[in-house]
Amino acid sequence: MLAVHLENRRVEVRKVRRPQRPKSFVLIRMLAAGICNTDLELQRGYYGFRGTPGHEFVGEVEAADDPNLLGRRVVGEINLACGKCEWCKKGLGRHCPTRTVLGIVRHPGAFQEFLTLPEANIHVVPDSISNEAAVFVEPLAAACEILDQASIPDDAEVAVLGDGKLGLLIAQVLNAYRKKVHLWGRHKNKMRVAEREGVQIAVVKQKLPSNAYDWVIDATGSQDGLRQAIQMTRPRGTVFMKSTVHGAVHVDTVPVIVNELTLVGSRCGRFEPALTLLRSRIVNVTDMISDILPLSEAKRAFASARKPGVLKLLLQGE
Amino acid sequence: MLAVHLENRRVEVRKVRRPQRPKSFVLIRMLAAGICNTDLELQRGYYGFRGTPGHEFVGEVEAADDPNLLGRRVVGEINLACGKCEWCKKGLGRHCPTRTVLGIVRHPGAFQEFLTLPEANIHVVPDSISNEAAVFVEPLAAACEILDQASIPDDAEVAVLGDGKLGLLIAQVLNAYRKKVHLWGRHKNKMRVAEREGVQIAVVKQKLPSNAYDWVIDATGSQDGLRQAIQMTRPRGTVFMKSTVHGAVHVDTVPVIVNELTLVGSRCGRFEPALTLLRSRIVNVTDMISDILPLSEAKRAFASARKPGVLKLLLQGE
Repeated sequence: MLAVHLENRRVEVRKVRRPQRPKSFVLIRMLAAGICNTDLELQRGYYGFRGTPGHEFVGEVEAADDPNLLGRRVVGEINLACGKCEWCKKGLGRHCPTRTVLGIVRHPGAFQEFLTLPEANIHVVPDSISNEAAVFVEPLAAACEILDQASIPDDAEVAVLGDGKLGLLIAQVLNAYRKKVHLWGRHKNKMRVAEREGVQIAVVKQKLPSNAYDWVIDATGSQDGLRQAIQMTRPRGTVFMKSTVHGAVHVDTVPVIVNELTLVGSRCGRFEPALTLLRSRIVNVTDMISDILPLSEAKRAFASARKPGVLKLLLQGE
Repeated sequence: MLAVHLENRRVEVRKVRRPQRPKSFVLIRMLAAGICNTDLELQRGYYGFRGTPGHEFVGEVEAADDPNLLGRRVVGEINLACGKCEWCKKGLGRHCPTRTVLGIVRHPGAFQEFLTLPEANIHVVPDSISNEAAVFVEPLAAACEILDQASIPDDAEVAVLGDGKLGLLIAQVLNAYRKKVHLWGRHKNKMRVAEREGVQIAVVKQKLPSNAYDWVIDATGSQDGLRQAIQMTRPRGTVFMKSTVHGAVHVDTVPVIVNELTLVGSRCGRFEPALTLLRSRIVNVTDMISDILPLSEAKRAFASARKPGVLKLLLQGE
């Protein structure tokens, strides 16, 4: 079968053996998979990554212990947890200290014809959700995580910084949950996706407003995003940190302390609210797809995903 | 009267006019005042400060609108708020955007024979609290602020980083409120003050424990403290930021996001819990006094306060 292989910044498509399915795992034929910014970072060598990336996917179950799963369309949670530790027992396998992570940490990812995941990680996709939309369940769950971490009042004004894929999803999710979202970005054409769903958009010119919001989300993916988010937040306000930036970020901590801000790191989320949002079509994800290429053209897809103005690149199973 | 004057890194004691008391203010004769690390920073020129510092004090009311206050021993909250804005109406004058701050921002401080403060800022000190102890109400209130910002469960293990004055107070406060406090510092002799009250102390050698606490307080006052605090915190844990460090702090935000930590900036607190703690003698503050000098010797006191191993320096009214 075909599998993408990342090594020394190079993207290759190799012929490899189909993976073995361990007991209690499912074997999944990949139907479609999305290239995330994390995949581009893995290509740059972060986490010392070498192997098959890919953690946003939809697929069809080819083999499983449970015969009811055979042939079903599924998405899968990306953290492979031990199931026994205190985190797993609390339902927080996402923080299991011995976890592996699909396509990121010691478990081959979804950019291949077949992948494996524990049955416990699998969610069946309702028929009303297309393959193209189902690929967004994982990043949409990460966007929904904010709502699990804090009680943002209805009608609260929330600033989302960054008009990349995650910023657009977060803006739409918060909008769907009745927050007054102001999306701040540099690319009007990208922000239109969220604007069509009712999000108020603002093109960042020189200066961002200071001391203006009780709730600010940094989804810029840039070194400077956290500083800007802090500056925009009112005393006692909350900043959600959604931008994994590698290396040291330079932050002036004085306004955090003087204004008693709360900064909340935020990563993966539960899949259920994301599936609900997609089923009810409250968020528009398919307009975020810039191109769909076959798995065999992964190299071109990675190159394309880096281009300015490009949003989501999908790889299609062979 | 005598007043300390800071300018161009120099500490001088000058003869100046006694301040006028505006209506609704009280005129206070300073009895004792403490030198805080913030005062040492003001001397270094932070906040572009020039004038009379001092915000930890106890004094006697010399003149007031309310005759019942005359002759009473008082301490005073340091933020002079407008009393009318949304913050003031919520009881959070500490965040009033037009506030001045005693001895820090546009209101002359306590390192002088007489000072003024709004009557609303004044708390009468019970007779059972000595002058030397009463000087600690302000920093003790800042330590208590942590308990107003989060519900730390009883018996939770809490790491306090830093054995300076604020670290020792925070460790004692959390200990008084039944948390299992581990105080991490470099100076065993300083930490003994907290150890005598039941705090478990640990001398920092090379490596601090990783992923070890759900609650960590950075009171190191150092550039590196926040990084260390983040490293010590378990997934979904909370770091309180109590170290105002000037200039950019370099932080690796990846563990904050991956482990979904919460970072909480924390500054001034309410005086009531601090007065209660001092009255019940649960915290030991007087052992933290390294020396008491007359106001006229402020220059020597500032120099002494910078020396390693020195804790609180008090200035005494003339």
